[in-house]
Amino acid sequence: MEVENNATLPPPEGPVSQPLAFRDEEGELNLEFLAAAADAIEASDTERLRELVEDFHESELGDLLEALEPDHRPRLIELLGSAFDFTALTEVDEAVREEILEELETATVAEGVRELDSDDAVTILESLPAEEKAEVLEQLPAMERVALQRSLEYPEDSAGRRMQTEFIAVPPFWTVGQTIDFMRETPDLPETFYEIFVIDPAGHLLGAVALDRLLRSKRPITIQEIMDDEPDRVEATEHQEEVARLFERFNLVSAAVVDEANRLVGVILVDDIVDVLEEEADADIKQLGGVKPDEELSDTVFYIQRSRFPWLFANMCTAFLAAGVIRIFESSLQHMVALAILMPIVASMGGNAGTQTMTVAVRALATRELGRSNAWRIITREAAVGLLNGIVFAVIMGGLAALWFQSPEIGLVIGLALITVLIFAALGGIFVPLGLNRLGVDPAVSSGPFVTTITDIVGFFSFLGIATLWFKL
Amino acid sequence: MEVENNATLPPPEGPVSQPLAFRDEEGELNLEFLAAAADAIEASDTERLRELVEDFHESELGDLLEALEPDHRPRLIELLGSAFDFTALTEVDEAVREEILEELETATVAEGVRELDSDDAVTILESLPAEEKAEVLEQLPAMERVALQRSLEYPEDSAGRRMQTEFIAVPPFWTVGQTIDFMRETPDLPETFYEIFVIDPAGHLLGAVALDRLLRSKRPITIQEIMDDEPDRVEATEHQEEVARLFERFNLVSAAVVDEANRLVGVILVDDIVDVLEEEADADIKQLGGVKPDEELSDTVFYIQRSRFPWLFANMCTAFLAAGVIRIFESSLQHMVALAILMPIVASMGGNAGTQTMTVAVRALATRELGRSNAWRIITREAAVGLLNGIVFAVIMGGLAALWFQSPEIGLVIGLALITVLIFAALGGIFVPLGLNRLGVDPAVSSGPFVTTITDIVGFFSFLGIATLWFKL
Repeated sequence: MEVENNATLPPPEGPVSQPLAFRDEEGELNLEFLAAAADAIEASDTERLRELVEDFHESELGDLLEALEPDHRPRLIELLGSAFDFTALTEVDEAVREEILEELETATVAEGVRELDSDDAVTILESLPAEEKAEVLEQLPAMERVALQRSLEYPEDSAGRRMQTEFIAVPPFWTVGQTIDFMRETPDLPETFYEIFVIDPAGHLLGAVALDRLLRSKRPITIQEIMDDEPDRVEATEHQEEVARLFERFNLVSAAVVDEANRLVGVILVDDIVDVLEEEADADIKQLGGVKPDEELSDTVFYIQRSRFPWLFANMCTAFLAAGVIRIFESSLQHMVALAILMPIVASMGGNAGTQTMTVAVRALATRELGRSNAWRIITREAAVGLLNGIVFAVIMGGLAALWFQSPEIGLVIGLALITVLIFAALGGIFVPLGLNRLGVDPAVSSGPFVTTITDIVGFFSFLGIATLWFKL
Repeated sequence: MEVENNATLPPPEGPVSQPLAFRDEEGELNLEFLAAAADAIEASDTERLRELVEDFHESELGDLLEALEPDHRPRLIELLGSAFDFTALTEVDEAVREEILEELETATVAEGVRELDSDDAVTILESLPAEEKAEVLEQLPAMERVALQRSLEYPEDSAGRRMQTEFIAVPPFWTVGQTIDFMRETPDLPETFYEIFVIDPAGHLLGAVALDRLLRSKRPITIQEIMDDEPDRVEATEHQEEVARLFERFNLVSAAVVDEANRLVGVILVDDIVDVLEEEADADIKQLGGVKPDEELSDTVFYIQRSRFPWLFANMCTAFLAAGVIRIFESSLQHMVALAILMPIVASMGGNAGTQTMTVAVRALATRELGRSNAWRIITREAAVGLLNGIVFAVIMGGLAALWFQSPEIGLVIGLALITVLIFAALGGIFVPLGLNRLGVDPAVSSGPFVTTITDIVGFFSFLGIATLWFKL
């Protein structure tokens, strides 16, 4: 990897400033670099600090901010002054961003936001309390203010929030030559763009021309002739996840954002979509593991403790239910302590098998691979897998238990219980996510507790129940 | 969403062919459409079939293939003939692709592969058995064959496999005008590109120019003047995950691929990277849930049963260990059946708390957010969260258990056990992934069983052990 992430510095003037790499060869943050940055901040040594972060990419500046002590973060920004690129603030965790913004002067924030692309500016404004947001907006030039206010009116996590309002739009009767000349002569073009849009005088989207198409076309040709008249577009109110699926499905790098009247209001670029996909995958992974999707590495102990509490509490209730089932068989357990020893195995096998099926179902629902057209096929397949694994493990574990307790009957009982619980685990693992999804609840958030409740209760009930009947306890 | 995914057809000629949408408004596959396609395949009605899939994007054609019965899939391709875009085969699950390719004639495959971008061609060739791969390669024009063979020599999942070998490279002394004219006059340009590369006569990469930069520059300016002389580049042998992190970090849409001597060999585009990120997130989610990352919705029952077996088997061994711990306290259980009823609660709380911490740690390791610079901070934070939640749940559950069994002592014992197990769960949840990562093992694959082994054993041991000591059983 030879890209900018090893920001080596030019030879230093004095003996103090040695060139220091921000990341080591394995891509880990260089602790020496961090120490040097912290020292420079402590000493308010602006020059040294600028030297250290010279040529930094915004994402590296963001990583540095996150790695610093919380009270060093706003000081870094103040010390760097105009050398600090506020885009870096879009690259840090939300909690860190909010904390930093709280410390900064409104004027500093307004100054920083002015330099940003509108999508980045929106991200920063979103993190400000209402009052400060209004103050910052007031300090911006009217054009920018109006565009940002409009973006902020769209729902959270919508295409309108993620879009950039800087784009190039030309009329259809322009020629390729005219368009290229226009771009050469306009100093204030968007920083990055991959297509230009074609609109009518009222701003309605008529088409789009990819840059490579434009470059390949001769100057006298009109835009109308080369434009794609069914360009990729999304409505501004669309949820960002839907937009991301669209980019993924059609391999897009950019898409027009239109309002309900098909007027062009912005453009969404693929780099924002990459972030959305990552966020979404992150959320799914965390939720399946019982962690709230907004938990970040930079959160405090108390925040995390409170945020993880509900899941554990739900699990405690579940576990009490399961214990209630066990208590029904209190006298059986008294007569035969082997049951108490083996019963966690049955429940745990059921829990794991249920989790396997649930994981596949939740992910397939998230990526839209599982739908009405194949639900039944997947359900029967999972049930069959459950039955097969049930039989296999009934044999293995039945044998082991029989040997361990010198009782073939114990083996038989645990085997029968296992087949039962693995079938229920498969059915629970698929029906719970499908059902929650049908009810409009995100299956990643809440499938887990339901599935383990099913597997625990079925596990304990079937094992202890079959044992009680068999041994006439 | 108004993009091509509602492929409505032109007005039909006869009464048979009604316009049918491929997806309904919620984005679910339209069952009527599937039935119509199946009918047309059964009847070998090429015309109707072409009508149905007219204007289909490759990804829609891929979705259709997956939704069809397995034996209809190759027939669809044969019936469509040259109207079938082989790119669609890169959009289906690997198992489906292999199955289809097995049924097709080598000549058909060679014909289809010839039309593809090199990265898509590689994906298809990868899915062929060695012998057929050689046959297909033989039937390709020499230039293409050599390029594909070179790509196939790079390791699996490397940048070299994912790259496109079609790119535009110009010498540094060309002017903007010359370059644009060259692009206008060359018919055989890559299908999509976002930057042009600058190379010396030996093919070494000197720089890159983004298309928007090129368009904004005046004709007499030389490429050298506007090129970025530290372009984003990756080595062909680099793993695709590292490449994806790079794209994500620096918001790239395209990156040069170079060989060990810095000669330009290809280009990687962001749409492939989006797929890599999705695959990677998919793999993490599945592995955390105990499912192999290559499991696909289209796999057979027997394949899935075998692939899920090892995880369940590992869990069984774990559960036996835990049962062994319980057996140590056999006589305590005999004297006090309340212990048997409550012990699964302790283990289950530990398991869930451990999974929460582990999920956060595994994901943070995967996204490179967790590293040496912050490991200790996260470890102490998790331990503190564990202690806090331990105390909170000790109070809640201790109270409930004391009430349920009318014994404050039972409440005290379970409370102490809970604090113990939640601290161990936190430590296990963070140290296991960190340790596996240090050993070079993917923590997503194997952290789960280790963590639950720890929480089960600590859970049963602490609860039953404390009870035995307290009640002198």
